[in-house]
Amino acid sequence: MSASLDDLPLRDDLRGQKPYGAPQAPLPVALNVNENTHPVPQEVADDILDSVARALRDVNRYPDREFTPLREAFADYLGHGLTRDQIWAANGSNEVLQHILQAFGGPGRTAFSFAPTYSMYPIITRGTGATWTAGTRGHDFTLDPADAASQVEAAAPDVVFLCAPNNPTGTPLPLDVVEAVYDATDGIVIVDEAYQEFAPHDERSALTLLPGRERLVVSRTMSKAFAFAGARVGYLAADPAFIDALRLVRLPYHLSALTQAAATAALHHAPTMLRMVDEIVAQRDRISATVEALGYRPYESWTNFVLFNGVEDSAATWHALYERGILVRDVGIPHHLRVTAGTEDETTAFLDALASVGSAS
Amino acid sequence: MSASLDDLPLRDDLRGQKPYGAPQAPLPVALNVNENTHPVPQEVADDILDSVARALRDVNRYPDREFTPLREAFADYLGHGLTRDQIWAANGSNEVLQHILQAFGGPGRTAFSFAPTYSMYPIITRGTGATWTAGTRGHDFTLDPADAASQVEAAAPDVVFLCAPNNPTGTPLPLDVVEAVYDATDGIVIVDEAYQEFAPHDERSALTLLPGRERLVVSRTMSKAFAFAGARVGYLAADPAFIDALRLVRLPYHLSALTQAAATAALHHAPTMLRMVDEIVAQRDRISATVEALGYRPYESWTNFVLFNGVEDSAATWHALYERGILVRDVGIPHHLRVTAGTEDETTAFLDALASVGSAS
Repeated sequence: MSASLDDLPLRDDLRGQKPYGAPQAPLPVALNVNENTHPVPQEVADDILDSVARALRDVNRYPDREFTPLREAFADYLGHGLTRDQIWAANGSNEVLQHILQAFGGPGRTAFSFAPTYSMYPIITRGTGATWTAGTRGHDFTLDPADAASQVEAAAPDVVFLCAPNNPTGTPLPLDVVEAVYDATDGIVIVDEAYQEFAPHDERSALTLLPGRERLVVSRTMSKAFAFAGARVGYLAADPAFIDALRLVRLPYHLSALTQAAATAALHHAPTMLRMVDEIVAQRDRISATVEALGYRPYESWTNFVLFNGVEDSAATWHALYERGILVRDVGIPHHLRVTAGTEDETTAFLDALASVGSAS
Repeated sequence: MSASLDDLPLRDDLRGQKPYGAPQAPLPVALNVNENTHPVPQEVADDILDSVARALRDVNRYPDREFTPLREAFADYLGHGLTRDQIWAANGSNEVLQHILQAFGGPGRTAFSFAPTYSMYPIITRGTGATWTAGTRGHDFTLDPADAASQVEAAAPDVVFLCAPNNPTGTPLPLDVVEAVYDATDGIVIVDEAYQEFAPHDERSALTLLPGRERLVVSRTMSKAFAFAGARVGYLAADPAFIDALRLVRLPYHLSALTQAAATAALHHAPTMLRMVDEIVAQRDRISATVEALGYRPYESWTNFVLFNGVEDSAATWHALYERGILVRDVGIPHHLRVTAGTEDETTAFLDALASVGSAS
C-alpha cells in the first residue's frame, strides 16, 4: 500500500498545493498553450538531426558547461551588437526566470508584476522562497509609464517582471514603460519577450534599452517563433556581470549536449522559421476580425494568441468547444477565453466551432 | 563598459562565491569527472537518433509533462517490481536532488551527509535555502550502522544523503547502514546510487529496502553506466506519494521531448551498455593493483574510479600528470588523488604517467 503525501515531511508551504497543469488532452485541435502549431520544416529537422548525431559521438562526456556555440548563435540571432558574454540559456524560459530569482530573489525578497500576466511568475517566485506582489493594469490591460512607475516605486520589489507583449492578454508594452519602471526601482527588471517575434516588424525590442542598464534583462524563448516548445530552450540577454550572477546559481551542466546541438542548428534556420511566424500572425489577425464579427471583443494582440471578452459563461463555452474537439484556454478572467493562432485549418476549425456554439453575450 | 557583480542587487549569501567548476580542459586523457570514457556504441546511437527523429516531428508542441514512457523504461530497467508511478527523472541527478530539496529541504530546514562525499550535496542544499551539516566517517571512509545512526539522531536533519558507493572515495555502503539511518530519523533518506552498476553483481541495491519505507528514495543517473553524461538524465525510485511531492516543485515540462526520446531509446539497450561497465570495472581493478604496486594506497572502490592515498604533494602530482596530458581530480583531501577508470588505453596512459612521475611518499 502506498503512503499519502500527509505521511511525508513535506514543507509546510507546499501542503495542500496542486501541481501546475494545463490540460494535456489528445484533442484534434489544441490551441490552449500558445504553441506554434506548425511542425519544424523537414530541411530544418534534418539539420537538427545531423547536429544531434554529432553530439551523440561524445555524449558519454559532460556537455560544455558554458554552451559557447549556442550563446554565439543566440547573440547572432538577436543582433543589436550583442556578444556571447551577454547571453544565458536554460531548459525553457521558466528555468531562465528561476535562475534570475535564485540570484536576485529568494527568501526575504519580493517580486512584482502587473496582473493579469504570465501565471508562472508567482509560481517561480514562491518556489525560490520570495514573496509575490502584483499591481494593476489600466484600460484593456494596458500600462502607462507614470502609473507603472508609481506602482513599482510603492511596491519597492527586488525583481519586476514586464511581459512584453503580455500573456495572457496579448497587450503590447511600450518601451517608455520599461524605461520608467527601470528608473523607479533599484531592483532587477525582466522584460519577458517570449512572443516578441509576433509583434509588428518595425517595433523596437527592449534589447535596444540594454546599453547602460545593468539591471535590465530581456528574456526570450525558442518555444514560440522557433516551434521548439518540446526542446525546452529559453534564453536571455543582459550585461555580462548579470550573466556571471546566474553562473553562481545554475546547476553545473544544466543544458544537455543534445539541447545545445539541436538549438544551435535550429537557430541557423532563423529566416525559415520566421516565415512561419508571418503565417501565424495572419491567422491571429483573422481570429481577431472573426470573433469580433461574432460579437466578441478581442484585445489588440502582438502575440500568437487572442484573448477575447464577451463570453457569457467562459466555462460553458470552453466545454462546448472541447466537445467539438477544440482545446482553448480559460485563463480565469470571467467572460474571457484565450485561443492560440494555429495553422489555417486549425484556425478555421476553431472559428467554425465558436460560431456554432452561439453568439456572444 | 560592462558593470561588475558589485553593481547588481545580488543576494548577500551569494556575494564572493565562485561558480562550480571542474576544469573542462581539452586534454588527451580526461579522467577527472568520473565519466564513462567509452562512447555510446554505434547501434545504440542509431536507435537514439531514430527516436530523436520521431520526437522532432512534434517538437513544436510542449513535451509530455509526465514523461510516461521514460518512467516505464526506468521501472523496467530497475526491476524489483517497481512501477512507473514510483519513478521520477530530471536533467541530471543534480536536478533530481534539487527537486527533493525544494520539497523537503529549503529555508529553515537542514540536510546532512557524512564527509567526504559528493561535493554537490552542500551546494544544492544551500541553493534551496537549507542549512548544510556534515558528520564523519570511520576508518578508510567507511560507515558502520550504530555510529551513522547516532550521528543522524544527534543532527536531526530533514534530509540525509547516503552516497552508495561513496564519491569521491569509492567506498561501499552496507545496506544495514541505510536501515539504521532510516530508523534514526523522521526525515527523508536519499541513497544516491549513481555508481551502483559498478558494484559487484551479487550485491543488493537499496531499491530492495523501498517497500514500507515511504521516506526512502534511491537516486540513479544515466551519466555513468549508460555513458550519457552529455544527455543529462538522472532519476529516482520512491513511494508514489514521494513522487507526487516532487510534482509540486518541478517546473512544468522540465524534461525535453528530445531528452525523453534519447533516454528511452538508450534504456532499451541496457544489456549492451552494462557490458561496457564490466570492461570499466576491469580497468578500475587494474588501477587499484597498479597504484598499490607503485607504493600508493588505493581504497576499495565499487565505482568507476579509484581514490588513492600516499601522494606526497597532491597539487604537484596533479600538475605533473596534467603536463603529461592526463587530467585527474584533486578532491581536496591532502595526499590523495582520484582517477576515473577509462578505456584500456587511457588507463595505461595514466598508469605509465603516474609511474614516470616518481614513487609514492
